[in-house]
Amino acid sequence: MKKIPVAVLGATGAVGQRFVQLLADHPWFDVVAVTGSERTVGRAYGEGVNWVIPGDPPPGIAELTVQATEPNLDAPVVFSALPTQDARELEPVFAGAGYAVITNASAHRMVDDVPLLIPEINPDHTALICRQQEARGWSGFIVASPNCSTTSIVLPMKVFQDTFGLHAAVITTMQAISGAGYPGVPSMAILDNVIPHIGGEDEKLENEPRKLLGRVVDHEIVLADLQLSAQANRVPVMDGHLASVSVKLDDPATPQQAVEVLETWEPPAICAELPSSPQRPLIYRHEEDRPQPRLDRDSEAGLAWTVGKVRRCNVLDLRYLAITHNTLRGAASGSVLNAELLVVQGLLKG
Amino acid sequence: MKKIPVAVLGATGAVGQRFVQLLADHPWFDVVAVTGSERTVGRAYGEGVNWVIPGDPPPGIAELTVQATEPNLDAPVVFSALPTQDARELEPVFAGAGYAVITNASAHRMVDDVPLLIPEINPDHTALICRQQEARGWSGFIVASPNCSTTSIVLPMKVFQDTFGLHAAVITTMQAISGAGYPGVPSMAILDNVIPHIGGEDEKLENEPRKLLGRVVDHEIVLADLQLSAQANRVPVMDGHLASVSVKLDDPATPQQAVEVLETWEPPAICAELPSSPQRPLIYRHEEDRPQPRLDRDSEAGLAWTVGKVRRCNVLDLRYLAITHNTLRGAASGSVLNAELLVVQGLLKG
Amino acid sequence: MKKIPVAVLGATGAVGQRFVQLLADHPWFDVVAVTGSERTVGRAYGEGVNWVIPGDPPPGIAELTVQATEPNLDAPVVFSALPTQDARELEPVFAGAGYAVITNASAHRMVDDVPLLIPEINPDHTALICRQQEARGWSGFIVASPNCSTTSIVLPMKVFQDTFGLHAAVITTMQAISGAGYPGVPSMAILDNVIPHIGGEDEKLENEPRKLLGRVVDHEIVLADLQLSAQANRVPVMDGHLASVSVKLDDPATPQQAVEVLETWEPPAICAELPSSPQRPLIYRHEEDRPQPRLDRDSEAGLAWTVGKVRRCNVLDLRYLAITHNTLRGAASGSVLNAELLVVQGLLKG
Amino acid sequence: MKKIPVAVLGATGAVGQRFVQLLADHPWFDVVAVTGSERTVGRAYGEGVNWVIPGDPPPGIAELTVQATEPNLDAPVVFSALPTQDARELEPVFAGAGYAVITNASAHRMVDDVPLLIPEINPDHTALICRQQEARGWSGFIVASPNCSTTSIVLPMKVFQDTFGLHAAVITTMQAISGAGYPGVPSMAILDNVIPHIGGEDEKLENEPRKLLGRVVDHEIVLADLQLSAQANRVPVMDGHLASVSVKLDDPATPQQAVEVLETWEPPAICAELPSSPQRPLIYRHEEDRPQPRLDRDSEAGLAWTVGKVRRCNVLDLRYLAITHNTLRGAASGSVLNAELLVVQGLLKG
Repeated sequence: MKKIPVAVLGATGAVGQRFVQLLADHPWFDVVAVTGSERTVGRAYGEGVNWVIPGDPPPGIAELTVQATEPNLDAPVVFSALPTQDARELEPVFAGAGYAVITNASAHRMVDDVPLLIPEINPDHTALICRQQEARGWSGFIVASPNCSTTSIVLPMKVFQDTFGLHAAVITTMQAISGAGYPGVPSMAILDNVIPHIGGEDEKLENEPRKLLGRVVDHEIVLADLQLSAQANRVPVMDGHLASVSVKLDDPATPQQAVEVLETWEPPAICAELPSSPQRPLIYRHEEDRPQPRLDRDSEAGLAWTVGKVRRCNVLDLRYLAITHNTLRGAASGSVLNAELLVVQGLLKG
Repeated sequence: MKKIPVAVLGATGAVGQRFVQLLADHPWFDVVAVTGSERTVGRAYGEGVNWVIPGDPPPGIAELTVQATEPNLDAPVVFSALPTQDARELEPVFAGAGYAVITNASAHRMVDDVPLLIPEINPDHTALICRQQEARGWSGFIVASPNCSTTSIVLPMKVFQDTFGLHAAVITTMQAISGAGYPGVPSMAILDNVIPHIGGEDEKLENEPRKLLGRVVDHEIVLADLQLSAQANRVPVMDGHLASVSVKLDDPATPQQAVEVLETWEPPAICAELPSSPQRPLIYRHEEDRPQPRLDRDSEAGLAWTVGKVRRCNVLDLRYLAITHNTLRGAASGSVLNAELLVVQGLLKG
Repeated sequence: MKKIPVAVLGATGAVGQRFVQLLADHPWFDVVAVTGSERTVGRAYGEGVNWVIPGDPPPGIAELTVQATEPNLDAPVVFSALPTQDARELEPVFAGAGYAVITNASAHRMVDDVPLLIPEINPDHTALICRQQEARGWSGFIVASPNCSTTSIVLPMKVFQDTFGLHAAVITTMQAISGAGYPGVPSMAILDNVIPHIGGEDEKLENEPRKLLGRVVDHEIVLADLQLSAQANRVPVMDGHLASVSVKLDDPATPQQAVEVLETWEPPAICAELPSSPQRPLIYRHEEDRPQPRLDRDSEAGLAWTVGKVRRCNVLDLRYLAITHNTLRGAASGSVLNAELLVVQGLLKG
Repeated sequence: MKKIPVAVLGATGAVGQRFVQLLADHPWFDVVAVTGSERTVGRAYGEGVNWVIPGDPPPGIAELTVQATEPNLDAPVVFSALPTQDARELEPVFAGAGYAVITNASAHRMVDDVPLLIPEINPDHTALICRQQEARGWSGFIVASPNCSTTSIVLPMKVFQDTFGLHAAVITTMQAISGAGYPGVPSMAILDNVIPHIGGEDEKLENEPRKLLGRVVDHEIVLADLQLSAQANRVPVMDGHLASVSVKLDDPATPQQAVEVLETWEPPAICAELPSSPQRPLIYRHEEDRPQPRLDRDSEAGLAWTVGKVRRCNVLDLRYLAITHNTLRGAASGSVLNAELLVVQGLLKG
C-alpha cells in the first residue's frame, strides 16, 4: 500500500511533538508537512521546535520546513494538535477545503455531528460524518478524540454499561502535568503540591463520556443517560492520568462479576485491523496497590487502560481505579488510532 | 499554674518528634521523660534521635535520657506516638498503672469505651472515660485521636450533619508522605507517581467518622448512621492531606447555603479555653483552585481545616475539598489539643 | 522613631511578594505604595496579585492600589523587585529623582560606583554612594544585592579570605526553582530532572564575589584577585540554593582550622544594630549529610548561611558545602538588611 | 551458538531486577537460575520478587524457583547483584568453585588482581584474570564493574587522558535515587531536597577512575597518576547520574579541541563484536542546557555517555557535564557488556 500523505497542525507544541514521534515510522501514513506558530514558520522543524520529550526530532521530519496553518498543504489528512482557539477557527476551514481533520483539540468534541471517537468504544460513530458533510456542505470532515481525562475513565464504564447498565459515576482524577502542555504548569505551583483545579476539565469529564457511550441512531447522536460528577486534580506526575471512580449500575453486580467482565472483555473486531492497536487494550491488575502512573502508563506502548481495585462502594455500587497515558492513549496515539479506523472503514484515502 | 509533667512515648519517630517540638514551650505541659526504641534507650534524646523535620531537637528535651517504654515514668500524662502493635500492648498497661494516655495510635480508636476525640467536633465524648475506667478497673485511661485522613474530612461533615443531616459520603484522598512516618514511603515508589493504596486507610476513613459524628448516650457511644466509601491515595507531597468528598444530605441544600454554614460555623465554646486552639479552625477559600496542600497546610499553625470548591454533585448532593496538616492537626497537635481539653474538663491533673 | 515610608517596585512578582511579606510588620519601614505591571495598575494589591507563596497578602498592604512604576511615589525609599530590563531603565530614573533605590535586580550590580552589598560582608562599600551621586548628579542612589547564588557561596569565602587568603574557587550549585520566579521553570522541564543551565548565572557566580570581596579605596572599588569557575544547576527543590565549593587558599589550612574560623567568626559590629539581623548568621553543621535545602534553608528566619562538610580537596585545598534561602537571604531579606544598614549609617532618612 | 547458561545472584533486589530484565532475551546468555534472600527462597521468582521497575517480571524467568546463594547452581557464569557484605563473602566462594563471577558489587573492585572493567575504556584489563586465578588457586574468577557514579564521569576522562594527558579533576555529582536501590532513600528525606552525602561514594569517585584509567603491565595494575576530588549528592531524580567536572590537563587544550576529540572518539574495535554495544557510546550535545537526566539517560537504551557544556575552567583547564543511566550503563547493562567482552576474548564458555 502506498502511504497516505499527512500533515501535523500545531506540530511544535507538546502534543504535536508526540504526533510527529508516532507518525515518523507509521506503516500507513507519511508526514509530508508540519505547521507551527508564527515564530517557527519558515524554519526547519528540527530547528524551530523546542523539543521537550525524550529523544530527538525524527530525522526525516526534522528537515521539513514549518508552514503556516493554512489549507494549502499537500496532504489530504491533517492531524490537529492546535490550541483550542485556533482549532475552533481553523479546523472547519480545513474540513471545508476537503481535508480529513483528525483532531485532538476540544473545540468541536461536543458538536452534534462531529464523531467523538475511540475505536475500542464506538467505532460506529463515524456514521455521523456523512451527516456532518451534508449539513455543512463540506467535502472534508472533522473527527475528534476525547479529553485525556475522559479517555482514562471511559473504557471500564463502557464495559459495565454493556453488561450491567450504567446509571451514574462519581469521579476524582489525579492528572499528570504533561496534560497541560508546555510550558504548562509552573514548577513552583505543583512541586510538593496538588492543584485541585484544571480549567474546564470537570465539565469535560461530566459531558464527554455521555457522547462516547451514546448511540448513533439514523445518523444522529443520542447521548447516554448518565449522571456524572467529577473533580479533576493536578498532581506532580509527568505522565499518566489516574482516576478513582464509583459507579451506580442498573443491575447489581458483585466485584467478582465486574472483574470477570473486565478480564474477558474483547474490543470490537475491527480493532484487530488497526496497526497501532494494542494487544491487550484493557489490563486488569490484581495487586492491591495498582494501577500506578509510573508503573502502568507505558503498558502496551502507552495504549492500554489499566484497571484495578474493583470493590464494593458503600454508597453507590462499585468503585475502582483506572489509568491511561494521557499524551499517548489520551491524545496523539488515540488520534492516530482514529485515523487508522477511518482507513479501514474506507473513509480516509491517500 | 504549675505545669503538668508529661512524657512522650515513641518520641524518636516522626510523630514523636512533632510531639516533642510542640510540647517544648507548652504553657501547661512540661516534657520530663521520653521513651524510644531499644537502639536509643540510655542515650541523650538529642543524640539518639534521627531528627527528620526542620529545625533541631529543642535544647531542654534533647538532654533527656531516652527511657524504655515502661510504666515507671515520673509523669502522670503520656502522649503516645507508639507504633500500632506496641500501642496495642502497652497503652492498656499504662492506663492500668494510672497514667492518662493521650494517643495518636490506631490501636484503640474504635474500641467502644475509648473516646475518639477532636475538641471542635465531640468534646462531650470524654464522658466515655468513666465507663472505661469502671469496666476495666483502670485508674488511668486512654483517649485517642483519629487517623490523619479521617481528621481531614470530618469537620465539614460535622457542620453539614448538624445543619442538613448527613446520609452518605464518597471520599477520595490525596495524602502526604509524612503520614507514613520515617523511613516510610521509599522515594523510588512515589517520585513521579501516585500510590493508590495505604494499608487499612480506606477502612479507617469508612469507620472512624461514624464514631466521631456519633452520640454518647448514657456513657455509651452510638455510631452515626452514615454510609461511607473511601479510596486513599499517596501523592508526592510532604505534608497535608487533601480530600475530595461528595455528600448525600438528609435535607437538600444549595452550594450557597452550604458555604454559608461553613463560613458562620463556630466551634464549641470550650475550645476558646484551650491555649493551642486556632483562631479560625475552619477556613473557607473562594478561589477556584484552593485548597492546596502547600499553600494551606500551615494555616493557623497547621491546626485549621481549609475547605473549598463546594458545588453541586450531579450524583449525590454536594461535593467539596478539604485539607488539614496531617502531622499537626491530624496527629501531634490534635492530641495536644485533646490533652488541653481534658485539663479544662478537669480530667487531667498534674 | 517614626517609620520611614517605603514603596515596593514590582510588588506583584514572586520576589516582590516576599518584600511585601517581610515589610508588613517592619519596625522601621512602612509600605505606603506598591507598583506593578500594567495588568494590575489601578486594582487593589490584594486583588491584582497572584499570590504564590504560603499565607495571604498582608491586610494593610492588600488594600493599597497598585500604581505604575513611575517616580511619583510618596516614599523616599523604594525596594526594587523589577525585572532586569525594567530595572535597567527605571532605577536610574528613580535615583535621579531623589529616591534611595534598594534593589534586588541584576541590572546595576557590577557597575563600578554602585555598592554591591551584604552587611555581614562589606558594610563599608556604601562609601561608593557619594561617588555615585557626584558622578551622575543624582540626589538619590542605587544600592544592589548580589544574585541569590552568589550570596549562598560568599560568606565562607569571606571568612577564608580574611584568615587564610583566598586564591581560587571551583563552584557547582544546585539551585531552587523559586530562584526563577513565577511562572519561571515549567514543571515538565524540572520534575524528575536537573537542568544544568541558568541563563547568566555562571557569569554572576564568577564575577559578583570579586566585587563583594573587593576593597573600597578612595571611594573606588578594587575587585578581589580571585579566579572563579562556576556551573549553576537547577534542581527540583522549592527554596534554598546549595553550593559545592573547592577553594585554593594563599596560606595552607587544615579542615580543622577552617571549621574553627567558621565557628568563631563574628559579623561586623554594626550588624548588631540591624533589627532583621540573624542571631547566628553562620551556622556550621557537623553531620556528614548536612547542609540540606529542606532542613537548613529556614534557619534564622531564612537569613543564615549554613555550612558543612569542610574537608581536604585533593586538587585545590579545601572543599565544603554552603546553603542559603534564595528568596530570603538571597533576595528580599538581604535587601531589607541593606536598607537597615543604610539607616544606621545615616544614609536613609524618612 | 548455543546460549551460555547463567545465574543472577541477588535477583530480587533493584539491580537484580534489571539483570533479569536485560538477560531475558539475550542472544548469548540464558538465565537458568536466580538466587535471593531467605524470605524468597523456594518461591517462584515472579511471586517472591517485589518488582519495582516498570513492566513485569519476564515470563520465563518468573517461573524459576528462587534458590539460596550457594555455589551449586547449574550455570558456569553468575551475574552478581549481591549486597556488599554478601558479595565480600560469597563471590570468592563462587570463584573458587569455578564460576565466572561478573559482579556489580563494590566488594572487590579495588582489589589489585580483580579487573575493574568497562569495555569502552580498558578491555585489556582482563589480563589480570590469569594472575588472579594463579595467586588464589581459583578455577573461576571475579570481574567487577565500577560504581555507577564512577561510570558517569570516566569516559570523557579517558578521552582527554588519551589525547591531552589528564592530571586532576574536581567532581560534583547529582545522583538519582535508584542508585540507592529499594527501599533506599526515604521519600521524606529527598522530596523537595538534596542530600549532599552518599556513604562511601566520594571515596569511590576519587579512587576507581585511577584503576580504570590505569595500565596493566605484566599482569599487574598500575594506577593512573591522577588527583581526584569528589562531592556526591543525591537529588530527587529517578534515574541518571549527572556530574559536573573540572579537569587539569597535561597539555593545554581549547574547548573546541576538546569537543572535537569527544565527537571523533571511537571505542576499541572489540566493542563492535558485543551484541549490547551501543551504536554511539559517546554523544556530545551542543545545547547550552544539556545533558539532562530525564532527556538523556535513555539514549542508546541507557548505554550512552552524554556529554555537554565543555568550556574553559577559570581555575583548572576545562569543565564539562556528563551523564549516564545509573542502573543500566552504570550497573546491570555494564556488567552484561563485560560478560559479552569476556565471551569474545574467549574467557567465558558455556
